[in-house]
Amino acid sequence: MYVIGERINGMFTDVKAAIREKNASVIQDLAKRQVQAGARALDVNVGPAVADAAGGMLWLVETIRQVSDAPLAIDTAKWEVMAKVVPQVPGEAILNSTKADPEIVAQYAGLAAENDAALIGLTIDADGVPGNVDKRVELGANIIATAMEAGLGPEKLFIDPIILPTNVAPQTPAHVLAAMSQLRMFCDPPPHLLLGLSNVSQKCNQRELINRTYLAMCMAGGLDSAIMDPLDKELMDTAITAELLLGKMIYCDSFLEAARYG
Amino acid sequence: MYVIGERINGMFTDVKAAIREKNASVIQDLAKRQVQAGARALDVNVGPAVADAAGGMLWLVETIRQVSDAPLAIDTAKWEVMAKVVPQVPGEAILNSTKADPEIVAQYAGLAAENDAALIGLTIDADGVPGNVDKRVELGANIIATAMEAGLGPEKLFIDPIILPTNVAPQTPAHVLAAMSQLRMFCDPPPHLLLGLSNVSQKCNQRELINRTYLAMCMAGGLDSAIMDPLDKELMDTAITAELLLGKMIYCDSFLEAARYG
Repeated sequence: MYVIGERINGMFTDVKAAIREKNASVIQDLAKRQVQAGARALDVNVGPAVADAAGGMLWLVETIRQVSDAPLAIDTAKWEVMAKVVPQVPGEAILNSTKADPEIVAQYAGLAAENDAALIGLTIDADGVPGNVDKRVELGANIIATAMEAGLGPEKLFIDPIILPTNVAPQTPAHVLAAMSQLRMFCDPPPHLLLGLSNVSQKCNQRELINRTYLAMCMAGGLDSAIMDPLDKELMDTAITAELLLGKMIYCDSFLEAARYG
Repeated sequence: MYVIGERINGMFTDVKAAIREKNASVIQDLAKRQVQAGARALDVNVGPAVADAAGGMLWLVETIRQVSDAPLAIDTAKWEVMAKVVPQVPGEAILNSTKADPEIVAQYAGLAAENDAALIGLTIDADGVPGNVDKRVELGANIIATAMEAGLGPEKLFIDPIILPTNVAPQTPAHVLAAMSQLRMFCDPPPHLLLGLSNVSQKCNQRELINRTYLAMCMAGGLDSAIMDPLDKELMDTAITAELLLGKMIYCDSFLEAARYG
C-alpha cells in the first residue's frame, strides 16, 4: 500500500499557522511523524487563500526536504503553481492532480514526464464528478490513454475515481468500488488506483470507523494507494492487515510491527 | 448482512459446561445477547466428543426456542444428527452444512426442501479444501445446480467458499475473495455468500483486527452472510459501516444505533 500522508495541508489550522509564521519545525515534525508511521510519500498543500501559493509551496518543499527524501505530492489546482514548483522539487515529485479532459491531461502528463514525476488523474471533467460507474471508468480510461501518449507509463500514474462523502452521496462509495474493479483491468501493469480517503467521511460521525472500513473494502477491490492520515494508528493497522489478507505479506505474530519497521 | 451468531458452540468452555450440566440459563443468555447485538440467526453446535449429539442438539434447540424465534443453524458434520434434528426444529432451520459432492448435496438439499429450511454448502469435496480459485468456483457452482434440482432456490442457499487461517494458508483469503466475485454471478438472484469468519484468524495474534478487516473486504466482494461473533462490538460496527458504504442503508448521525435497533 502506497500511503501518501495527508497532514501537511493548509486546511489544518496547525499547518496554516506554520505556513504563515514560517515555522519550519511544525512542518518537519509532521513530515517525520508521517513517514515514521508508514507514509511512503507526503502530500503538500498550502491551503486556500494564500497570496503567493507557489512561494508557500516551495517553502514547504524545501522545509520538508531538510528532513525527508519521501516523494512529495504537489497538491494544487492551479497550473501555474504546478508548472513553477514541480521542476524545483529535489527528488521525486507527484503531480496532484489533473482532471480528465484530454488537453489538460496532456499538459500535466507532459510536465510529469519532463520531470520524471508521477501524476494523479481525477475522474472528473468539465461536466463535474460523474454520477455513475461507467463515466468514472470512461474518464479513467481516457486519462490512462492520454498519459501514455504523453510518455507517462502506468507505473507513474495514479487514477483517482473520486470519492464523495457517504452522507451526501450515498451511492458513491459503491460506484467507486465498481469503477476500480474495471479500471484495474485496462492495462498490464495496471495504473495505481488512489483515493483521497478522508473525503468519504467528511462531516460524518464515526469518521475513523468509516475511513478504515472503506479502506479495507477498497483494497479488496484493487486500491493500492491512498492520500490518508498515517497518524491514525487503527487506519494504518487496517491497511497492513488488508495487505496480509491479500497475500502481499506473510503472517508473523508481530506482523503489524514488521510491516512498519520491516 | 445476515449475521449468524457463532457463540452457542461446544468448542467454547462455557457452552461445553452448560451442555454437560443442562444449564439452560447460560445458553439462553447467549442466545438473547447475540440477537440483541444484531444476530439474525444462531449457530447451534454441541461440540466434539458428545456421546448423544442429537440429544444434546435437541436440548439446545428447545432451550433456545424458549427465548428466541431466530432461525437456528444446525451445525453438525453427521448426517444422522442432521436428519433427526432438523424436522424437530420449531420455526426456521438452516442446515450447517453439506459438502459439495453431488450425491451429498442432493441428500442435504432434499432434507432442507422437505423442512422448508435453508442450506449451507461448503466448497469442499472428497479431495478436501481446494487450493485455488477455480476449484472453489466449480464446487460452488455444483452445489447451486444440485440444490436447485432438489427444489432449493438460491434464496435458501448459502455458499461457503471456505476460509483457512491466514497464518497457515496465506493465499486463501485472496482466493476466497476472487471466488466470491465469480460465485455471485452464477444465478439471479445470487445465492447467499457466507463464511465462517473467525477461521481466518485462528491461532493468530490480533484476531479481532484480522476478523473485522477481512469482513469489510469480503463484504465489498459480495459476502452477505457470516457465522461470526456478534458480541464483538467493533466487528458488528464494521459490518454496519460496510453496509452503509455499499449503499444498503442511508447515513444518519446515529447510523450504528439505527442499524442495531432500527
